[in-house]
Amino acid sequence: MSTNTEIDADARDRLLDLAAEFYDQFAGGEVPSMQIPTRTKSNIEYDDDKDVWVYGDRHSTRSANTVTGAKKLLKAIYVIDFLAQQLDEDRSSTLRELYYLSESWDHETAQFSSQDESNQLIEDLEIVSDVTREDFHMRPEESGATLMGPLHLREQTRRGERDIHCQEDVGEGGYQIPNNPDTIEFLDNDADFILCVETGGMRDRLVENGFDEEHNTIIVHLKGQPARATRRITRRLHDELDLPVVVFTDGDPWSYRIFASVAYGSIKSAHLSEYLATPNARFIGIQPTDIVEYDLPTDPLSDSDVNALENELEDPRFQSEYWVEQIERQLDINKKAEQQALASRGLDFVTETYLPTRLGEMDVL
Amino acid sequence: MSTNTEIDADARDRLLDLAAEFYDQFAGGEVPSMQIPTRTKSNIEYDDDKDVWVYGDRHSTRSANTVTGAKKLLKAIYVIDFLAQQLDEDRSSTLRELYYLSESWDHETAQFSSQDESNQLIEDLEIVSDVTREDFHMRPEESGATLMGPLHLREQTRRGERDIHCQEDVGEGGYQIPNNPDTIEFLDNDADFILCVETGGMRDRLVENGFDEEHNTIIVHLKGQPARATRRITRRLHDELDLPVVVFTDGDPWSYRIFASVAYGSIKSAHLSEYLATPNARFIGIQPTDIVEYDLPTDPLSDSDVNALENELEDPRFQSEYWVEQIERQLDINKKAEQQALASRGLDFVTETYLPTRLGEMDVL
Repeated sequence: MSTNTEIDADARDRLLDLAAEFYDQFAGGEVPSMQIPTRTKSNIEYDDDKDVWVYGDRHSTRSANTVTGAKKLLKAIYVIDFLAQQLDEDRSSTLRELYYLSESWDHETAQFSSQDESNQLIEDLEIVSDVTREDFHMRPEESGATLMGPLHLREQTRRGERDIHCQEDVGEGGYQIPNNPDTIEFLDNDADFILCVETGGMRDRLVENGFDEEHNTIIVHLKGQPARATRRITRRLHDELDLPVVVFTDGDPWSYRIFASVAYGSIKSAHLSEYLATPNARFIGIQPTDIVEYDLPTDPLSDSDVNALENELEDPRFQSEYWVEQIERQLDINKKAEQQALASRGLDFVTETYLPTRLGEMDVL
Repeated sequence: MSTNTEIDADARDRLLDLAAEFYDQFAGGEVPSMQIPTRTKSNIEYDDDKDVWVYGDRHSTRSANTVTGAKKLLKAIYVIDFLAQQLDEDRSSTLRELYYLSESWDHETAQFSSQDESNQLIEDLEIVSDVTREDFHMRPEESGATLMGPLHLREQTRRGERDIHCQEDVGEGGYQIPNNPDTIEFLDNDADFILCVETGGMRDRLVENGFDEEHNTIIVHLKGQPARATRRITRRLHDELDLPVVVFTDGDPWSYRIFASVAYGSIKSAHLSEYLATPNARFIGIQPTDIVEYDLPTDPLSDSDVNALENELEDPRFQSEYWVEQIERQLDINKKAEQQALASRGLDFVTETYLPTRLGEMDVL
């Protein structure tokens, strides 16, 4: 692992390189411009070497040959200046703070008219400079997911190092994942696998039933659609500890997207797949077949559920035999179930029967 | 503090007393019934002794003399049976699990048709038995707020006691408040006051700037409308450590409701005011007067903002001179501002100028 100072200096250099490029374009008599990959479903493709989805060849160009384009590049330069200074001073800020901070900039044209605009610009800079937002020291507004399991880690905080065992040194709420999990070093662990869980209710059930202790599991709470920090730490746990990752969600199309975002990343951030996605992550349930097999309490699919399932059938991330079969099955039975619906068989059914059975089928246990 | 076992036994007894009452009504030839206070704005009143808002005298009656009423009482009896057993076994469950679990009950009429129905019944039982949901061992679906500050505490977990210092033993994410904060004992502290903060972005700014260290503050992240666990621990910090509580939110009517829920509780849970509300909590900002004084970036009030402000002018919880003046001022300037808008004056303005000035005005610093 590179030290934080090295990472900061590298991020700063890459940003300043971008600014230098604009300068050289000017000096060479060219109209300054910036090339950015098109971020749509039709422009993502599978990279076999890296095992992740990445952008294809299609690009759009931000050029100063229009007033709109010139304003965008001006804003980019102000943001680069701000980020370089932030890295220099080892400080950080949120996307929203950046938006407000622009009001203090001397050149009014450089100020943002909405937070969408500043968010978008930060994403563009991530893609063009190949530096992640975290390495720019940009924080999200809210993060807040937790870990619980047989893992001893060291977090580098602004107040010094903290050594924390994620069962013995935390309360029932678990260990709070920091905004930038690359400040964490894994010291040692007794874990056999990683279990990512969608809902807080189910996470609490697993912890109350001692599932992490009995099965040597690190339970990662996803809190719905997982934050970048949660996806990043999951990828690192998989890579660095060489542990299988399974994802446990509700049985509906929105939850399959949660699984897809852990495993494959999102279309809007395919430039980060290598950093955030865990391609070997596998879906444990709730599967449409479980709904039938365990006769779970269900709700009928709504129109928007059916639409979402049909979209998934066309999404490159769901083109495996497994997913096509599950999705078609669900359209067929026209039902969905929440993970907590397993409680209809008793509060221990999930930890004594459902998960051990599925983990056995998947050769994880 | 009573031990957990004593609290459990007491909660169980009160529930069984309710069931016994139904039995006695039957045995005495009466139609069984249950009286519940009306939970509307017109039926809350200030209790001067306890310094909190409580329900007034208006009641509605659930009686078995109609089929609907009889079904409700049947469900109540099944839930009492389940809760008594849960307390006996020292287990816990979520509201959603209870809903699903009802599907396993032998008597189909006792099963819930929606989660609203089971949630409502638990609230009714809280009111009638005078036992909190937490003492029934019912957990919320999601909680997830955090503490950071000079506080050393002991949490009683199912896995034994955990002694945690909320600066030295936690990462940058802070200490995760458990679902039932009455499992916490405060050991010692160097705190001068409690600062409750609405947004994650601002919470992270205060922690990054070391505000908790410099001003001996316990920073409680509210995460928008605060969970019961967050309100409960705030109340306990105030009462047991004898510390002033200030609340820092955005400057809009929805955020004033967040303040009101910390200070006065919510209308729907006035039966819990004494347990969850901190009547001495004070609002630090963003005040409409701050918007003017610091020339903060603003948005115009929407129609629903104006409506909400006008409702607040009629809400008994906002009848003080201070609030009437602030709300009228805001309607007058027709603007609102977020707490992070302070970043337009620089990232340190909030910790170096805004908060110290306001805390001075309020005689907290």
